[in-house]
Amino acid sequence: MRQFAIKFQPQDKKVSVPQGTDLLTAATKAGIILTAPCGGEGLCGKCRLIVKKGTVKSEYSNLISDADRKKGMVLACQAIVESDLEVNVPKESVEAHAHASHEAEDFTKGIVLERESAFIFSPFVRKIFIELERPTTDDNSSDLERIEKHLRAKIGGLHLSTRLANLKHLSEVIRDSDFKITAVLSYKDGFFEMLSVEPGDTTASNYAFAFDIGTTTVVGQLIDMNTKSILGTRIAFNKQASYGSDVITRIIYASQHEDGLGRLNSAILDNINEIVEDLVASCRVSMADVYAVVCAGNMTMMHLLLKIDPSNIRKAPYVPTVNAFPPVSASELSLEINPKGVAAFIPGVSTYLGGDIVAGLLACGIAESEETCLLVDIGTNGEVVLGNKDWMIGAAASAGPAFEGSGLSCGMKAVQGAIQKVAIDEDFNVQTWTIGELSPKGICGSGYIDILCQMLKRGIITKDGKIDRLKLSKRIRKTDTGYEFVVVFKGESGAEKDIAVHEDDIENLKRSKGAIYSAIIALLNKVGKSIDEVKRIYIAGGFGNYLNIENSIYIGLLPDIARSVYEFVGNSSLAGARMALLSHEAYEMTMRIYKNITYLDLSAEPNYMDEYIASLFFPHTDLGRFPSVRL
Amino acid sequence: MRQFAIKFQPQDKKVSVPQGTDLLTAATKAGIILTAPCGGEGLCGKCRLIVKKGTVKSEYSNLISDADRKKGMVLACQAIVESDLEVNVPKESVEAHAHASHEAEDFTKGIVLERESAFIFSPFVRKIFIELERPTTDDNSSDLERIEKHLRAKIGGLHLSTRLANLKHLSEVIRDSDFKITAVLSYKDGFFEMLSVEPGDTTASNYAFAFDIGTTTVVGQLIDMNTKSILGTRIAFNKQASYGSDVITRIIYASQHEDGLGRLNSAILDNINEIVEDLVASCRVSMADVYAVVCAGNMTMMHLLLKIDPSNIRKAPYVPTVNAFPPVSASELSLEINPKGVAAFIPGVSTYLGGDIVAGLLACGIAESEETCLLVDIGTNGEVVLGNKDWMIGAAASAGPAFEGSGLSCGMKAVQGAIQKVAIDEDFNVQTWTIGELSPKGICGSGYIDILCQMLKRGIITKDGKIDRLKLSKRIRKTDTGYEFVVVFKGESGAEKDIAVHEDDIENLKRSKGAIYSAIIALLNKVGKSIDEVKRIYIAGGFGNYLNIENSIYIGLLPDIARSVYEFVGNSSLAGARMALLSHEAYEMTMRIYKNITYLDLSAEPNYMDEYIASLFFPHTDLGRFPSVRL
Repeated sequence: MRQFAIKFQPQDKKVSVPQGTDLLTAATKAGIILTAPCGGEGLCGKCRLIVKKGTVKSEYSNLISDADRKKGMVLACQAIVESDLEVNVPKESVEAHAHASHEAEDFTKGIVLERESAFIFSPFVRKIFIELERPTTDDNSSDLERIEKHLRAKIGGLHLSTRLANLKHLSEVIRDSDFKITAVLSYKDGFFEMLSVEPGDTTASNYAFAFDIGTTTVVGQLIDMNTKSILGTRIAFNKQASYGSDVITRIIYASQHEDGLGRLNSAILDNINEIVEDLVASCRVSMADVYAVVCAGNMTMMHLLLKIDPSNIRKAPYVPTVNAFPPVSASELSLEINPKGVAAFIPGVSTYLGGDIVAGLLACGIAESEETCLLVDIGTNGEVVLGNKDWMIGAAASAGPAFEGSGLSCGMKAVQGAIQKVAIDEDFNVQTWTIGELSPKGICGSGYIDILCQMLKRGIITKDGKIDRLKLSKRIRKTDTGYEFVVVFKGESGAEKDIAVHEDDIENLKRSKGAIYSAIIALLNKVGKSIDEVKRIYIAGGFGNYLNIENSIYIGLLPDIARSVYEFVGNSSLAGARMALLSHEAYEMTMRIYKNITYLDLSAEPNYMDEYIASLFFPHTDLGRFPSVRL
Repeated sequence: MRQFAIKFQPQDKKVSVPQGTDLLTAATKAGIILTAPCGGEGLCGKCRLIVKKGTVKSEYSNLISDADRKKGMVLACQAIVESDLEVNVPKESVEAHAHASHEAEDFTKGIVLERESAFIFSPFVRKIFIELERPTTDDNSSDLERIEKHLRAKIGGLHLSTRLANLKHLSEVIRDSDFKITAVLSYKDGFFEMLSVEPGDTTASNYAFAFDIGTTTVVGQLIDMNTKSILGTRIAFNKQASYGSDVITRIIYASQHEDGLGRLNSAILDNINEIVEDLVASCRVSMADVYAVVCAGNMTMMHLLLKIDPSNIRKAPYVPTVNAFPPVSASELSLEINPKGVAAFIPGVSTYLGGDIVAGLLACGIAESEETCLLVDIGTNGEVVLGNKDWMIGAAASAGPAFEGSGLSCGMKAVQGAIQKVAIDEDFNVQTWTIGELSPKGICGSGYIDILCQMLKRGIITKDGKIDRLKLSKRIRKTDTGYEFVVVFKGESGAEKDIAVHEDDIENLKRSKGAIYSAIIALLNKVGKSIDEVKRIYIAGGFGNYLNIENSIYIGLLPDIARSVYEFVGNSSLAGARMALLSHEAYEMTMRIYKNITYLDLSAEPNYMDEYIASLFFPHTDLGRFPSVRL
């Protein structure tokens, strides 16, 4: 088949593809992650490229104006390569920050920190140094039995298994290192697996990764398994975004495109491997000293990461292939840590209540609590679990990724430069606080909550989320698609562009907060409890260092009860994965947690839709539910 | 590098090899297994070839006569290819029967048969058919959990694990087969591993192989795992023979030749895969229905089969890498059964007391016996274990493979056409009985025992094993290298050649029987017991259907005690492997057996050498030990 050369500008990337390839595929091959929330179906109109030289075959799309079409603009997913090409990539077509992982702080907070230090330290992978007694005629047991005997003396009650690969050169390794070796052990189903035998004493270098694999963002942490300390945290946009913004679009992509599953799998593996590479490089850790990865993520992410056919996830009755994924060797998964290392996964409850939530429950300790508690995890969807040590019930709200800063005109993740806290005075003067105290680049979830609250208080927006056209301010301005409020003007505090909140953003945020609030109410109704019976409410999500509970209640995201009941815990999915990495007791507990949760399908609940519609106001249609909110 | 074409006749095989290759390697590549007991060191002079056309570079060897050299004869291992060649392969240079596996009967006998039927039937791999309940909104557990639930109801207390590969398309397999599936389970370390999920009900077809991997011969058996019946047995010469006749030569070959270990590994895998292919074809079984192989073999064979560096086995203090080899997937081992199948190995005691002996002890039940028993396994070496349920002690005698028919002028395995029983009357008339009642082709171990005994009784040989030159008979004749006794003349009973016993053969057999007898005495001495305290003596080995105990005692191979103590059990290594395949209790027992045996190093025993030298007579220097033998 004929091959064509395509050059992408301004990235200056070249790629060769066979005739008939679409430009979205070609761009992905060149490492350029285009925005394509519809998964390449030609529906969202976001993956725009401008063909400067050469020919493509492209269907007419009314998503592209005639003027743009004349400039050579096409939808990448609908444009078939027919010659060598030169293509321009508009800035807005590229998934923001898609190319690199970003340094991030760890925002673990409150009870999670306490619990983490309370767990017995029994790391997922441990290294044990042993000086073997040399074999003699009287003591000529095999090399492996000799190792077992010494290990048994050190850690007791050992039942050891190992892979054939470790035996092939074991005798040489032992003798070359003068009978001084380090055994690398991983706990597995009640016994130890010896992952590797290293010459000499390597116990000082034992590292691992905890990962939170979200639909929108991927967060990884490098952990020193000796000191339990976090050496670094990185965050990246999930590269699967070019195959769809939500799990359903991606599952369809996996099912309907040739090697669709393979592409989605490669994308998430790229994310993980990039974060691993970045962190080991910046922390000066050797890749060979990394033996474990524990991942928490939703069911679809886990299926795609393990390349398990996800197609039944989206077909009623929405059955995943597996809840408790088996640990997999790093080499089998193509994970770029030590190839003898192991990856483990936090089990999930059901298709829409995944391992990220189970990890969060582990982190907050709800499954061991005498008191009834609530976990509200605000991610790409909002998941909510209510319960205590005796029972748990959970639900998933279709909240969308707005509070992760995704899908909003100036939204961004909670990374350096994100506006995370906002105050607006009576004269509409705006004060902002950014993560890292840098020039503002955009707004993260907690920033939007503050902005919504302040705009409501100052009357800038109405109860139904429209910007008051009568308010006179340079910050309120009309755009082609409605009104927006400028939070930071270009040049203010070093901002490189205007940072604004558009009415469309507000609508988006309103639906998100409504979905989460009404899911909480649905769970309470299902078990016949009132919100006052809930003694602790843990709020989790990628909000950064800061979440204003008062403001969250003010906009109707969270129920209006005593503020002392609330605790913001940060990314509890990541914290749970880290706990499982550092303590086997914690990892084993996730196996009990997932089995003890009842999943409530909100779409099958008779009153849920009424609740949801009633919540599409600030704070709520029924103001009696929010007595402390004075509009 | 230049490539040269080599043509071997009369096989008419062609092969292309790079300049600098030796002819032994080239022949092996062409599938021609030359006799090379020295492992290609140029010492034995057996791998002779005649170069008819072309040039080789060859060192002078005094093992080749000037006359032969003029004909173009070279030692293959010392001849370096320097041009295209045409080469003749003399018949005597080819390892007998090396190319194919032979049909063989199963010769399991006595107590082994009883024990086999007494073990609880709990096969290594079992298939269970389940009709899954279809998932509903109320019962939407994952596909894997659904399978677990159904399996638990059928076999109880299930702890299931499975590999990632089985999950990738599990949802599709289940739905395509209308929720009717067969789970293929293997017991592993206290839980079940699900090896595979097959659509529909495939329980009727479940097959496996038991293998006895000997230094000289490889025996495989196809077992129907539903009926426990043996569908067929095949025997073949170990193809590693072209790299040396004994384990030490092969270990040296593995260590000193580039990819030496790889070649030895390929050779034994070829043996196994050929037997598998032959048996599944002739029994009309599908390869995909074969999920398990259990192998018993000596330590070196197991190391080579698993491609584990064997070099330390031959260095004092003779330490193997591992005693209890982990089960390995068929695909990892390149075993041509179902790639999801599993291979397991009977553990060994020490370098010179391997899994073949542990399998034999399992088969005879010595490890569970109240009475003190003895197992004498006569294979390439002779291994002897003494003990009961409380203690066991074992030793390996350097007996060589004479009783396997190897290294003798007319020796052969116990297969169709082998003389297994002989009677010589006073007039030196010889009557022979062959396996399968076919024309005689050679003599197997039990035949040699009879011949030696009869020759002693008739005065044909003296007490020290020399043929009496004064006896006048057409059967006694002189050769270049000494005298021989013709058992069958060419033409008699359809024999295609003279079948004779040479003085060199007798010397060889004398050393073998002496090594075994003196090993038995050494063990008794070590524990301070007399032979009369031994209540059962089990004789194992590839003797075919028949072993005359009386005659074995007469030649001094076995102690002279009540004949009723003896029982010939056949190939107990193979029988033990089969038991492990059919019963997990049996397999688990081998893990206890190997740990309970003390290995006695005969070479370190002060009086062993004296005992051995005293045994190099028929029956023994000390006739007082053989009161029932009248010479």
